Amino acid sequence: MGKVYLVGAGPYDKELITVKGKRLIQEADVIVYDYLANNALLEDKREGCETIYVGKSSGNHTMSQEEINQLLVELAGKHDAVVRLKGGDPYVFGRGGEECSELHDKGIEFEVVPGITSTIGGLTYAGIPITSRGGVATSFHVLTGHFKDDSVERDFESLAKLNGTLVFVMGVKNLSKIVNGLTSAGKAIDTPPIAIIYKASSPDQSTVQGTLGNIMALAEKENVKPPSLIVIGDVVKEREVLDFYSKQPMLGKHILVTRSRKKSFEIYRFSYKTWRESDADTYH
Amino acid sequence: MGKVYLVGAGPYDKELITVKGKRLIQEADVIVYDYLANNALLEDKREGCETIYVGKSSGNHTMSQEEINQLLVELAGKHDAVVRLKGGDPYVFGRGGEECSELHDKGIEFEVVPGITSTIGGLTYAGIPITSRGGVATSFHVLTGHFKDDSVERDFESLAKLNGTLVFVMGVKNLSKIVNGLTSAGKAIDTPPIAIIYKASSPDQSTVQGTLGNIMALAEKENVKPPSLIVIGDVVKEREVLDFYSKQPMLGKHILVTRSRKKSFEIYRFSYKTWRESDADTYH
Repeated sequence: MGKVYLVGAGPYDKELITVKGKRLIQEADVIVYDYLANNALLEDKREGCETIYVGKSSGNHTMSQEEINQLLVELAGKHDAVVRLKGGDPYVFGRGGEECSELHDKGIEFEVVPGITSTIGGLTYAGIPITSRGGVATSFHVLTGHFKDDSVERDFESLAKLNGTLVFVMGVKNLSKIVNGLTSAGKAIDTPPIAIIYKASSPDQSTVQGTLGNIMALAEKENVKPPSLIVIGDVVKEREVLDFYSKQPMLGKHILVTRSRKKSFEIYRFSYKTWRESDADTYH
Repeated sequence: MGKVYLVGAGPYDKELITVKGKRLIQEADVIVYDYLANNALLEDKREGCETIYVGKSSGNHTMSQEEINQLLVELAGKHDAVVRLKGGDPYVFGRGGEECSELHDKGIEFEVVPGITSTIGGLTYAGIPITSRGGVATSFHVLTGHFKDDSVERDFESLAKLNGTLVFVMGVKNLSKIVNGLTSAGKAIDTPPIAIIYKASSPDQSTVQGTLGNIMALAEKENVKPPSLIVIGDVVKEREVLDFYSKQPMLGKHILVTRSRKKSFEIYRFSYKTWRESDADTYH
């Protein structure tokens, strides 16, 4: 039996994968991947390495979680090194635990390689430090913005009282619930600020900043879409000083590259389709 | 003027630095570093690259934060590429924001490269996923275990009500405050479980697991020391299945290597001294 490596791919910037993750991609016999922010990571695979896309897009799951679990078990029976590549970090809303449990039950060896989670590293690229000294933020709180069968997490009474940075992932569709939940629980509408970061660390990254009082109107005006991170806290103010990324000369300047229709389609498919937030697992 | 790169070194495992971080170490003219979990990362520097240790150990700061800020400004005036290497992630309790602010004020270009924070990746190596499906944990909350001039963070009333995973860093000295705070605020003494992870992802990694009711006695019995992470949540139960790391054949087996006294001292100094938790900044 082979070994399965659950590898966190990190956010869009492909240099943000770990050295270990990159080495395992280079050594893999087969790579099972989905919802990567940047499929350029797969270019490092060795010749003959098989790649299997098990991604999910809006209501149209290519494979169920159960099927993915079974696939990993099967592949471990056929190959020495199976890499399971997941966006962000495998354990930050990534269902990595379920896949490892299945492998454990079948007696298959596995290892988990952490990745940079956009919930921290994505904020960095928007100029927002997740913690800061001087009483600004000495804690942080990361939550899904998906609320189905998750009544306890909607305890905005407790969340509103926390002094640390709040980060919601996959929350754009529930922005009004989050804003209303926090303000109803007593969070002031004018402070601390709130930021919504779209496609963090990608060339398309953009940030909308406001307050709990005006963010709904701003989000509508700026046509805020998933995948975005929502950040609430005094650390948002530090963007003014710490935003190194959007000042880069080439950022957001799209360059027209001519190529075949088939190639363009593939690039579209792999770079953008998997970024959709409609699937709860696509963005970490 | 040169450019300063704040690079997150990640936890002990030196392969957990990002590809970008490793490249910048290789390209740097000078590396300013402190409190790294593993100084083997510095071996990648190019010939002629200067390294400056500005680390802090127990009450004996080699350089004040203000002096470090000034040093970075000075070095940017003399070199093209200055790497400021920090343990874990530069923005997770790392004072990275203060250093960048100073650079910004002096008109010096900077960039921040995220690192794997032990608060997520360290848990992974102990077999604990920071989030898990099925209602186990769909949020996580990371806090310093240092409480000085930080009264708001000690709002255990709110923390005790949260359903997600709680992670305290630099909290071993305040373990009784944390345990008493949570139980006084109504957290049950028998559930969820609590784990204390010592030197996550290092060959010395060890974990003590208990409940809020018995962890103080266990910690004393097992002589729990800093640097350790404290994790409270149902995800701790998953260790039984997900602990891939401590099952490795060589882990914790110390190998005697004979070498000169000077070399041994250096290894001691760089591998262990900087791991001390007594400085608030040493462990992320």
